[in-house]
Amino acid sequence: MASVAVLGASGYAGAIAATLVHRHPFFELRHVTARSESGAMLESIHPRTRVPLVLEEWDPAVQGKVDAALVCWPHRVSAPAVAALRERGVRVVDLSADFRLRDPAVYEHWYGRHGAPERFGEAVYGLPELYREAIVGAELVANPGCYPTAALLGLAPLARAGVIADVVIDAKSGVSGAGREPSRTTHFIAANENLTPYKVEGHRHTPEIEQELAVLGASLPVTFTPHLVPLAQGELVSSYVTPSRAVSDAELADLYREAYADERWVELTLGPPGVLEVRDTNYCRISVHVDGRTGRVLVFSAIDNLWKGAASQAIQNLNLMFERDESEGLQ
Amino acid sequence: MASVAVLGASGYAGAIAATLVHRHPFFELRHVTARSESGAMLESIHPRTRVPLVLEEWDPAVQGKVDAALVCWPHRVSAPAVAALRERGVRVVDLSADFRLRDPAVYEHWYGRHGAPERFGEAVYGLPELYREAIVGAELVANPGCYPTAALLGLAPLARAGVIADVVIDAKSGVSGAGREPSRTTHFIAANENLTPYKVEGHRHTPEIEQELAVLGASLPVTFTPHLVPLAQGELVSSYVTPSRAVSDAELADLYREAYADERWVELTLGPPGVLEVRDTNYCRISVHVDGRTGRVLVFSAIDNLWKGAASQAIQNLNLMFERDESEGLQ
Amino acid sequence: MASVAVLGASGYAGAIAATLVHRHPFFELRHVTARSESGAMLESIHPRTRVPLVLEEWDPAVQGKVDAALVCWPHRVSAPAVAALRERGVRVVDLSADFRLRDPAVYEHWYGRHGAPERFGEAVYGLPELYREAIVGAELVANPGCYPTAALLGLAPLARAGVIADVVIDAKSGVSGAGREPSRTTHFIAANENLTPYKVEGHRHTPEIEQELAVLGASLPVTFTPHLVPLAQGELVSSYVTPSRAVSDAELADLYREAYADERWVELTLGPPGVLEVRDTNYCRISVHVDGRTGRVLVFSAIDNLWKGAASQAIQNLNLMFERDESEGLQ
Amino acid sequence: MASVAVLGASGYAGAIAATLVHRHPFFELRHVTARSESGAMLESIHPRTRVPLVLEEWDPAVQGKVDAALVCWPHRVSAPAVAALRERGVRVVDLSADFRLRDPAVYEHWYGRHGAPERFGEAVYGLPELYREAIVGAELVANPGCYPTAALLGLAPLARAGVIADVVIDAKSGVSGAGREPSRTTHFIAANENLTPYKVEGHRHTPEIEQELAVLGASLPVTFTPHLVPLAQGELVSSYVTPSRAVSDAELADLYREAYADERWVELTLGPPGVLEVRDTNYCRISVHVDGRTGRVLVFSAIDNLWKGAASQAIQNLNLMFERDESEGLQ
Repeated sequence: MASVAVLGASGYAGAIAATLVHRHPFFELRHVTARSESGAMLESIHPRTRVPLVLEEWDPAVQGKVDAALVCWPHRVSAPAVAALRERGVRVVDLSADFRLRDPAVYEHWYGRHGAPERFGEAVYGLPELYREAIVGAELVANPGCYPTAALLGLAPLARAGVIADVVIDAKSGVSGAGREPSRTTHFIAANENLTPYKVEGHRHTPEIEQELAVLGASLPVTFTPHLVPLAQGELVSSYVTPSRAVSDAELADLYREAYADERWVELTLGPPGVLEVRDTNYCRISVHVDGRTGRVLVFSAIDNLWKGAASQAIQNLNLMFERDESEGLQ
Repeated sequence: MASVAVLGASGYAGAIAATLVHRHPFFELRHVTARSESGAMLESIHPRTRVPLVLEEWDPAVQGKVDAALVCWPHRVSAPAVAALRERGVRVVDLSADFRLRDPAVYEHWYGRHGAPERFGEAVYGLPELYREAIVGAELVANPGCYPTAALLGLAPLARAGVIADVVIDAKSGVSGAGREPSRTTHFIAANENLTPYKVEGHRHTPEIEQELAVLGASLPVTFTPHLVPLAQGELVSSYVTPSRAVSDAELADLYREAYADERWVELTLGPPGVLEVRDTNYCRISVHVDGRTGRVLVFSAIDNLWKGAASQAIQNLNLMFERDESEGLQ
Repeated sequence: MASVAVLGASGYAGAIAATLVHRHPFFELRHVTARSESGAMLESIHPRTRVPLVLEEWDPAVQGKVDAALVCWPHRVSAPAVAALRERGVRVVDLSADFRLRDPAVYEHWYGRHGAPERFGEAVYGLPELYREAIVGAELVANPGCYPTAALLGLAPLARAGVIADVVIDAKSGVSGAGREPSRTTHFIAANENLTPYKVEGHRHTPEIEQELAVLGASLPVTFTPHLVPLAQGELVSSYVTPSRAVSDAELADLYREAYADERWVELTLGPPGVLEVRDTNYCRISVHVDGRTGRVLVFSAIDNLWKGAASQAIQNLNLMFERDESEGLQ
Repeated sequence: MASVAVLGASGYAGAIAATLVHRHPFFELRHVTARSESGAMLESIHPRTRVPLVLEEWDPAVQGKVDAALVCWPHRVSAPAVAALRERGVRVVDLSADFRLRDPAVYEHWYGRHGAPERFGEAVYGLPELYREAIVGAELVANPGCYPTAALLGLAPLARAGVIADVVIDAKSGVSGAGREPSRTTHFIAANENLTPYKVEGHRHTPEIEQELAVLGASLPVTFTPHLVPLAQGELVSSYVTPSRAVSDAELADLYREAYADERWVELTLGPPGVLEVRDTNYCRISVHVDGRTGRVLVFSAIDNLWKGAASQAIQNLNLMFERDESEGLQ
């Protein structure tokens, strides 16, 4: 057994992460924290968690005694807490963006001043299907953003094969992606029966996608545009790839089968996937085919933004960090 | 006053078309027909229409006596009825795809054998903002498909300026676009909280978009992919244009202002439009900007698929055909 | 022509009220105000209004120069503004609860200290189908609450016939009823796919319903419980009446036909009404029947909470106050 | 280990039942059947099940070899299959209404001729919280209807205390309750943004509720009215009880605590429950209080209609029939 604290358990991803740890056969949920709702029971705020723990205020002397922590705080708030935990030897999965980027200037451009610059670059990028070996035994893992998770899983086989000349990524996400704070945007009346692009001038997941595509072999600027869709959880990424050479459906099928045949949490589908098929799971469903009239490669990848795009992927990483079965507690 | 028949008034677009004619100051709704629900009052099937007319069986000798008809039937069912109406001198707006395409071979490839080949090519393509002069006084108008309406209004200024080198069109539509027939796809449980691409191997609106883009000056194959979104009415088309030369936001703003400054039903917006803003109206809202990191031009166009994408655009066309104020009955 | 100001036009009901006045053939929309969003265009905040007026700060010297005002502010904020308008001779429809109740002690119990006690009791209760004569020519009309509107229209024929021995009122409303301020309750993720009773210990519309039932002939305490339903606009009130004597379906049909045969905005339906049938309209749909196994009378009444339950009913009242056709501007 | 067949696994409840058996530590899912979709994989029709079994045609010689069966077929179709299974000694939980009623005349009045009259009356009514002892070791269990489950759990403590003089039951259910067959009612466009009472002249769950209330001590006709709400899964039952004597909130709290303190799957809540809190679980959440102004007792009970109202309750029953821990496979 290893003891775990979940920091920021009152948010959507944090609440699910806490639930998954709470039910996990190996990990034991020792602490949950919240910044503005401390003192309340987690299950009184999120009844579906049925986690009867009191939300505590963050105090390194208290929560820093655990074996591992999942930090579910916003970027910039996260980094100092991660640093404090690491100093005490706590293994950390950070769900914020604070340790995902490798270039400090890029981080500063998109997010502002970093909260723990001395630790910048220490983390492993936690996309298990792509970087499993580096995650096993790691002490600090940066959990990927939801859009990068779906986009990268969808594009990785093409990037590795060196055939991406250009790519347009049109992404759609449910409203939980906008977080739990009430706002004009997340008001039921604003989101319901609506559908709108957002952050079209530049979304922070763009540099993250570009960084990892480059690692995989495709160095290029991408067009990435997210849209807000009236559903709670679910994310669909439609990627339109201009290939550097002609590819066939058969070649694509081989490429993706090879990449994901042994992956428990990636499902290749014949027709395009729907987000409901992966709701409340750690699965990513992917379909790929060539558009006969243009030669473009179309990749559709669907995840649950709060699960594979955040909380359950964090557990998957945590399992690997402790050299457990990667799927433990996720079935 | 001119008398009007609406054929296929039991469908979603037909019911709205009937309502708009019913309330119109110049047109008088004389007949409504339905194939499988004749005998019922339109308002008993569609209470929101509040049209107290009985749905009749289609009979050219009966409905053919009107001055004009809106034909809201599916493709292939529509053509013979249109032909019969035209023979009697009735002016027709056809909401099906039967008279939109100009190349019979293309029609046959996508839709099968045409139901009135002798009249193929007789119709004017009814997108008033682009082809107003040809519509005024026309006797047969092919009402555009919903996706082509939004896509073409969004892309026309770029096509005319000759700057489209390539384009990816990612479209999202509410469930009413799938029609009123109950099916696995339109079941509440299948569509609700879901989001899925469909007809990814090729959607029938693709050749229509390509045909009209060519007319406007951009001859190229396009990638067009629709997605089903859990809302009733509304359509958003996100177009990703690779320009043939660098363009600036200022140039784009001029281009679009010039194209649409005098257009009553096109609204240019600074931020990207949401479909709720045009719900139940004849408006098309468009935003356009350059993606700084790639140089691509991003165009977002939003319409109500049943209104500007079908029924209200049909009224707009009908007004023009009778040389009335184009906006009569639509405010 | 009469000039009109809409105070509180940035709220949901206020925005619709402003739109209806703006399009009205007799009234002219002169001013719109907002408390926290003044300076913005109404149509920039509520695109669907397409009202190109700037939201002003409330100033009796400015907006008090109109012929009439619709006050769409919350209770207690409304009363002083109403008083200031009345002092300047402006005719007022107040959409808040401030002038609905007739007993100051009851008001104070449910709402707190009144903001203009000297005018308490001056208003006519603005439910046109029940109190039309008193509204014609009135100078201050208290627009009914949404739940009382649907409940009273559903129960009035029974109350007048003296057959209500007891009644349970189970009401369901869409999320717009909770207002435009973002909150935990109105967050998409909290409301979507959820369904919950609220204010079960006592909702402020209870004394209003009881007061008017007493006026109509049924003095009794009622059980009234509202529920929040995941839709934008629409309200269904299910009333379960224990009759003081046996009644038959035939007698009920006569009673309701007699009451509403000449009412333009009340539709009696054979089967139970759905809220979608009255969406975006001033209609109230009602069905009534006897539960054979218990002898209870079941009445279902459906309205759009923002229209007949607020904004369009305010226009209906305004029309009557100015002795216009009651339905002007509402068709 | 005991082998299990799920008959009717292509329906919503059947698919969940199959999933729960598939993941169960003690039961082994051996067969799944479907009437019209046999030959397909269950997970191809219901991806969320991730049950890689082929749907078979019903054949007693094949599926009759298991230790237990869950029959998820409609009433009247179910009875003969149940009889055939029982003849082979298979223990059965029947999710249809065929074995719930105890009076054959009542069955025939509401459902028509029974399909296995010789076995009528053999079943135990499977509401574990009320009839646990009879279910342990039983060979045929009639799984309660969804509305009776919520209504009876909510009313049982009052019925047993003998204080129900009269009751109005206003129920609201998500669209999955209407089944998987596409229809006008379940079409997204008809259900979305709508809210409507249905079967107001009499719903088949009424006699079931009355029968079991009588068993619990309250013999009376009830008014029961269901409403269709635009959400997928979830059911809220609002019960308005006229007590035969005055009761206090304190007394109610004691009564319910006593009844349910040891019940794993019943949660008493202070405020009224929302259906989202029990989504995808076997929980029933109940709140109860006295309406101070009328003395009425208000009980709100929330379940997931497909889980506690069908599939998971069937597993709970199956566990008891095999003398396993009642909650096995449900956490």
